[in-house]
Amino acid sequence: MIEDKNQDRTTLDKLGEFGLIEHLTQHFSLQHKSSEKGIGDDAAVLDFKNKKTLVTTDLLVEGVHFDLSYMPLKHLGYKAVMVNLSDVYAMNATATHITVSIAVSNRFPLEALDELYEGIAFACTKHKVDLIGGDTTSSTTGLLISVTALGEANSANITYRTGAKPNDLLVVSGDLGGAYMGLQVLEREKEVFKVNPNSQPDLEPYSYIVERQLKPEARNDISGLLKVLGVSPTSMIDISDGLSSEILHLCKQSEVGCNLFEEKIPLDPTVISACEEFKIDSTMVALSGGEDYELLFTVDQKDFEKIKGNPNLSIIGHMTDASEGAHLITRGNTKIPITAQGWNSFKSE
Amino acid sequence: MIEDKNQDRTTLDKLGEFGLIEHLTQHFSLQHKSSEKGIGDDAAVLDFKNKKTLVTTDLLVEGVHFDLSYMPLKHLGYKAVMVNLSDVYAMNATATHITVSIAVSNRFPLEALDELYEGIAFACTKHKVDLIGGDTTSSTTGLLISVTALGEANSANITYRTGAKPNDLLVVSGDLGGAYMGLQVLEREKEVFKVNPNSQPDLEPYSYIVERQLKPEARNDISGLLKVLGVSPTSMIDISDGLSSEILHLCKQSEVGCNLFEEKIPLDPTVISACEEFKIDSTMVALSGGEDYELLFTVDQKDFEKIKGNPNLSIIGHMTDASEGAHLITRGNTKIPITAQGWNSFKSE
Repeated sequence: MIEDKNQDRTTLDKLGEFGLIEHLTQHFSLQHKSSEKGIGDDAAVLDFKNKKTLVTTDLLVEGVHFDLSYMPLKHLGYKAVMVNLSDVYAMNATATHITVSIAVSNRFPLEALDELYEGIAFACTKHKVDLIGGDTTSSTTGLLISVTALGEANSANITYRTGAKPNDLLVVSGDLGGAYMGLQVLEREKEVFKVNPNSQPDLEPYSYIVERQLKPEARNDISGLLKVLGVSPTSMIDISDGLSSEILHLCKQSEVGCNLFEEKIPLDPTVISACEEFKIDSTMVALSGGEDYELLFTVDQKDFEKIKGNPNLSIIGHMTDASEGAHLITRGNTKIPITAQGWNSFKSE
Repeated sequence: MIEDKNQDRTTLDKLGEFGLIEHLTQHFSLQHKSSEKGIGDDAAVLDFKNKKTLVTTDLLVEGVHFDLSYMPLKHLGYKAVMVNLSDVYAMNATATHITVSIAVSNRFPLEALDELYEGIAFACTKHKVDLIGGDTTSSTTGLLISVTALGEANSANITYRTGAKPNDLLVVSGDLGGAYMGLQVLEREKEVFKVNPNSQPDLEPYSYIVERQLKPEARNDISGLLKVLGVSPTSMIDISDGLSSEILHLCKQSEVGCNLFEEKIPLDPTVISACEEFKIDSTMVALSGGEDYELLFTVDQKDFEKIKGNPNLSIIGHMTDASEGAHLITRGNTKIPITAQGWNSFKSE
């Protein structure tokens, strides 16, 4: 689907590892005061002073997490960073630094890696994080990206998965299910393309959900928004595997139960119409779709008025005593136990 | 060469990602005061107080960096950690935390990953570092390990590659070339094994160099030794790619030249005899072999008496003005320019 318009190809063996790192990182500069030394020594040196340091890491594997037949490399670089920053934001913290390691087969020319790093650079600029290290090596097949993100926070602000209490309100940012439905559209177009390589897919009506899949945006705004609203979340997690899986994490780690209201789950109109077209239940998509990178958190009931009606936030349920379990209350007022249908990369389809 | 004695095999899809992480990390505990939260939330939380934070990362790929036909998984886990800790030690710092991410194909049963994590756990215990996070996912082929190491140091102790001055002495810990010659022995035995699968290799005479290859030990003792000796290194790097490549890094980044004396390069007797057996020049092996994970550093000339004769350290040369370039002075007193023959994973053999 993606035509290679760039006919200039530089093979990677010409540069060697040090030359490649130098080439790929030449336009990155350090913005954070805490970055004392970035790329170029055995290790980076950071100074977080009196703040706490956050660390998280994620691995993206070609053929498992992404398909280069419809994922432009620039978007892939952007997404690989977002996936990690989202984990820092889910601690109610600020992201500050990343390291990026890639394993890449010789079939990729330098120009392809340039595109990948363009996306990484764009993510760094937009989210104000410094690239401070990494490793590049060859792989026997495909592309693999390993990102580690660091962040900082004042001790009092860090929000764990463990702090939810019975009667706390369950809140989610943005809307859900878009990334999954975007993937369905892309997979369908890929099949069409296989049959007819001259087909020109019209993705315009699906642009919102396709973008949710290809270029997700980690929610670095929620921490600030909650501060402005005067709300301290009691627990927080990001939605990478689907709403049900994340709710169960909060319940298990906070030792509480939950009532989730189907009618309150925020869905974009594009998601609803795509679900109708694909004949998939939109609630199932929100519960199990994953990759939305929205934030899911709990707040004390006294904060109801502060949250209510905020266009960025939806109150979708409340926590209960652990003994009550975790349930979805359907539109028809039926109570269904929530089970994790999250994605398992080890499962053979 | 390595017989699978364990006939119990648990497939990874049974556990799923969360189950797998929980299983693999259940016996790890946090030892560092700075570890406020390890595995189990969106990110780990660390408190380095008034110390600086060091960050480094490395990627090990099956078929590129290791060959499982002679690399036991337990040793691989140990080595993957050592490679990273070595980079922290090369800043004259203390290693404190690691994250470990793995991509693994379904051909690996759970028991294989248990062995890998046994080696990781042993490395953590021996080097007093806490495992605080990671990611596990499937790969379409083989095994890939991505480790990020964090460390801490007082500002005054951090040693960069940039501080060497003309007339500084060039010092190396331990001895060189062992890891490379160990690899030659293992590769030879692998070829023998292909022809005759019943062959029982006698690796006893090569045990030192085979261990240098399979189970290298990062030098966490040098920083303390230098403190005891009252020596502040002016620049430092670890030897992962071979002595010549690392010397050139120090020269380039410190803007100095170097005279390296062939007769001073420390070689273990096993390395010398293996070089004779394989008909390889031992100086070439030390210069270009790599993977020894010894530390290479410079000290002021006034520290000569403190370093001289120390069994852990060898003075192998001195730095010069940049205009003089970097040279090897051979036993026959010939001056040869040092060129990097370091390993390039992108080069097709």
